[in-house]
Amino acid sequence: MQATSLRARVTSFVEHRLFHDVIILIIILNAVTLGLETAPSIMARWGHVLGFVDRAIIGVFVVELVLRLFAYRVSFFRSGWNIFDFVIVLISIIPAAGALSVLRAMRILRVLRLLSVIPQLRKVVEALLKGLPGMGAIVLVLILVFFVGSVLATKLYGADFPVYFGSIGESMFTLFSIMTLEGWADVAREVMGKYPLAWLFFVPFIVVSAFMVLNLFIAIIVNSMQEAAEGERAAERDAAHDAHGELMLTVSALRADIERLREEMGRK
Amino acid sequence: MQATSLRARVTSFVEHRLFHDVIILIIILNAVTLGLETAPSIMARWGHVLGFVDRAIIGVFVVELVLRLFAYRVSFFRSGWNIFDFVIVLISIIPAAGALSVLRAMRILRVLRLLSVIPQLRKVVEALLKGLPGMGAIVLVLILVFFVGSVLATKLYGADFPVYFGSIGESMFTLFSIMTLEGWADVAREVMGKYPLAWLFFVPFIVVSAFMVLNLFIAIIVNSMQEAAEGERAAERDAAHDAHGELMLTVSALRADIERLREEMGRK
Amino acid sequence: MQATSLRARVTSFVEHRLFHDVIILIIILNAVTLGLETAPSIMARWGHVLGFVDRAIIGVFVVELVLRLFAYRVSFFRSGWNIFDFVIVLISIIPAAGALSVLRAMRILRVLRLLSVIPQLRKVVEALLKGLPGMGAIVLVLILVFFVGSVLATKLYGADFPVYFGSIGESMFTLFSIMTLEGWADVAREVMGKYPLAWLFFVPFIVVSAFMVLNLFIAIIVNSMQEAAEGERAAERDAAHDAHGELMLTVSALRADIERLREEMGRK
Amino acid sequence: MQATSLRARVTSFVEHRLFHDVIILIIILNAVTLGLETAPSIMARWGHVLGFVDRAIIGVFVVELVLRLFAYRVSFFRSGWNIFDFVIVLISIIPAAGALSVLRAMRILRVLRLLSVIPQLRKVVEALLKGLPGMGAIVLVLILVFFVGSVLATKLYGADFPVYFGSIGESMFTLFSIMTLEGWADVAREVMGKYPLAWLFFVPFIVVSAFMVLNLFIAIIVNSMQEAAEGERAAERDAAHDAHGELMLTVSALRADIERLREEMGRK
Repeated sequence: MQATSLRARVTSFVEHRLFHDVIILIIILNAVTLGLETAPSIMARWGHVLGFVDRAIIGVFVVELVLRLFAYRVSFFRSGWNIFDFVIVLISIIPAAGALSVLRAMRILRVLRLLSVIPQLRKVVEALLKGLPGMGAIVLVLILVFFVGSVLATKLYGADFPVYFGSIGESMFTLFSIMTLEGWADVAREVMGKYPLAWLFFVPFIVVSAFMVLNLFIAIIVNSMQEAAEGERAAERDAAHDAHGELMLTVSALRADIERLREEMGRK
Repeated sequence: MQATSLRARVTSFVEHRLFHDVIILIIILNAVTLGLETAPSIMARWGHVLGFVDRAIIGVFVVELVLRLFAYRVSFFRSGWNIFDFVIVLISIIPAAGALSVLRAMRILRVLRLLSVIPQLRKVVEALLKGLPGMGAIVLVLILVFFVGSVLATKLYGADFPVYFGSIGESMFTLFSIMTLEGWADVAREVMGKYPLAWLFFVPFIVVSAFMVLNLFIAIIVNSMQEAAEGERAAERDAAHDAHGELMLTVSALRADIERLREEMGRK
Repeated sequence: MQATSLRARVTSFVEHRLFHDVIILIIILNAVTLGLETAPSIMARWGHVLGFVDRAIIGVFVVELVLRLFAYRVSFFRSGWNIFDFVIVLISIIPAAGALSVLRAMRILRVLRLLSVIPQLRKVVEALLKGLPGMGAIVLVLILVFFVGSVLATKLYGADFPVYFGSIGESMFTLFSIMTLEGWADVAREVMGKYPLAWLFFVPFIVVSAFMVLNLFIAIIVNSMQEAAEGERAAERDAAHDAHGELMLTVSALRADIERLREEMGRK
Repeated sequence: MQATSLRARVTSFVEHRLFHDVIILIIILNAVTLGLETAPSIMARWGHVLGFVDRAIIGVFVVELVLRLFAYRVSFFRSGWNIFDFVIVLISIIPAAGALSVLRAMRILRVLRLLSVIPQLRKVVEALLKGLPGMGAIVLVLILVFFVGSVLATKLYGADFPVYFGSIGESMFTLFSIMTLEGWADVAREVMGKYPLAWLFFVPFIVVSAFMVLNLFIAIIVNSMQEAAEGERAAERDAAHDAHGELMLTVSALRADIERLREEMGRK
């Protein structure tokens, strides 16, 4: 009984508006301290304060997470956003203990928790994610074209231009940069210096990948548009349906009137 | 009594079409003189004339502003466009008195008053501004991703590549240029020379920021589209509503007809 | 009498399908010869043949133009496409007589006549041009921002970076290249080497100009979309109108029925 | 009789779901082996295994193709996708026998067979291809502008800048890179060093080609949108039609009621 009531009280605590706002403020404060940590002059003078604040904030986050885990138990992991919070706090604890500077740098990811705690931002991210599945098949085709292009480029130009096409990984990076049109003409000209027909690889690759990205893009626009229009249309359909219903009722009443008239005449 | 009548006369003067057109002409003249001022050869021969014209134009702008302030008093500041004019004229007076070449260069901003005085341009700017609030949340997410990316890049690569990622400000500038895809492959290749896994930072950053800019873009398109469609739909809805109303009236008349018929029969 | 009949015959000749197709073939032939003229090896062997063919084709174009001028007289100049043909043939005659290599190179513009003679291409160009007026005001705002930016950049950075911002013309070119995001980061970094706050000029300029180009773009899409939807909607409206009319007619017939019924009852 | 039954059995075999899935798995396996072949270290140790697997897979593809040819005979070539498979397998057989490294590299194209065997990807490619015809005329205009621009650039700048505009082919490549905005400012600045008015060629070319690509783009969006909206509208139209039909039926029944009433009255 007591445990249950404790759990209920913890639940109402972690769901309280004030608790929520305090967490947001702490994340923003953490963003500021992590930002300040990048300045060596500030670190020299205030480094120990910033370090202390940072550890304190991690403490708050861990406590918050434990409270929410205690409140929701297994159902905590049913929400993608909770898992997101969980993973981010986990990443934060490791470097706090430790050593690797890459992991220490990862602490800034905590600030991304703003995405999960501020409802407006959460909605934006959810809208972005919702658009992803519709893109699935086109992205697969794009990846396929990318893979084929990378193997082809590695085999054809890898020996002569190891910087760009030395391995399948390097080819993929180069083709990605070519797809963003970044410096593609320089790469192409260099390769064409040895293989004059190399434009037969680069130009079609650019046209095809640009055309596919464009279609990806259009797929998203059309989807967004249709969703936006859907509500509108539903409202219109309802209005039309209501008008039709009203009319049908009136006409039915009319038929009833006439029926009554006939009965009255019959009675005479 | 006299003051009121003076104010009324000033109001009708500043609202006069001719006054308005003269101001437009003066702004365009100022654009020309400020343009000519950039050419040293012209400045050498005609510098004093251009300087005189410029001071005269500032005089006209100040008088115009004073008249409008006198005419509208406090309500002058209720319009954003008036505040825009006020600030621009203010910026113009300071360097006229003064010294700093940066502030002198700012005089060209006066030409932006064309945006406030020509109704068509005003409408364009208002349309552009109206699109901003709808973008709010996505822009916030974008800024968040930018901030996290900048802190991460400064911590990871700042020590080795101070030109690009030396401070959080330099990282932000570099990430902005990467987001515009400008020379990103060169930066990435340079960093990858030391950190071969750096593409794990650059490629996702480009994909995520491009995807978010794209969605920003789509949000604006969908909004514009819906607004454009709204008028259309309203007209259609009205037409449908009118048709329905006419029909209902006729059917009601029909029911009244039958009612009368019944009454007449009842009377027999 | 004879002149009129001659004119009528010329008109029917220049409007003949075969004549039209022959002109298209000649333009394509001219495209080929002008293309071949760019290859020195071909010019060395076949230069005189190509020159002869070119002169012969100019002759055909001049004759065609004279015939059409004779056929339509002043009304010839009522069509923008005719003026287009006229100007292009005119440009072709000058270098044929003459000297300047720039004007000789202009002969290739003749090939653009394909735009006026092939109906499908004509339609594309007309569609492109029809989109222009709707963009007017945004383009004006863009030009204004461009002009203000150029004067500002020339005044602020012209003395130190004459290559990029030496004169208002050079500034405009540089700002145009920055607007296309081409190498903007290099220019900005160079200027920021001397003026660390220069990013306050470059980044807002990029954001504002990109945002405006984007809106230009959206204006065109929304316009195209609405036009495309207009036909659809009109058809729908007609269908709704027909359905409504049919219904009203039936209900009116109904009222007439009842009226007749009442009269018959009255007669009893 | 036996041949027919054999053919029927082959048909049901090649159309079997399991056969289909095995082929997909083999293509993916081939993608992996061809990817591994690009790594020299793996080739050194496992080269003979990879070569064996590759030859085995070609064998499977040839057998599959022969079976399908036997099953469908001439009608095999009625499907564009079958021709696609046929050509790809054909390209695979040649280098298997042979010599040329370019042809050997082409074996990776086999992986593109995933486009034809996985229905979802097939649909994407078909959707992309369906969008092409609608772009026809704009693409023709774009090619025309490109051709005219290339001849013009070759004639004007070819002698002085052979790297960029030495021949019509080189001009086309350079103009294509300029159209993608890749390094255009560098090329333009270089040419403007000798011909200060060259911006009169480059800037309009960029504006016109960008405007045309934009319109190409819009044409595709509008098409996609309309197709997407078509289904919606049809459903709406059907609903409106049904509602109208129901109403007309009821009103007709009403008229019949009144007719009956009149008859009954007449009988009295």
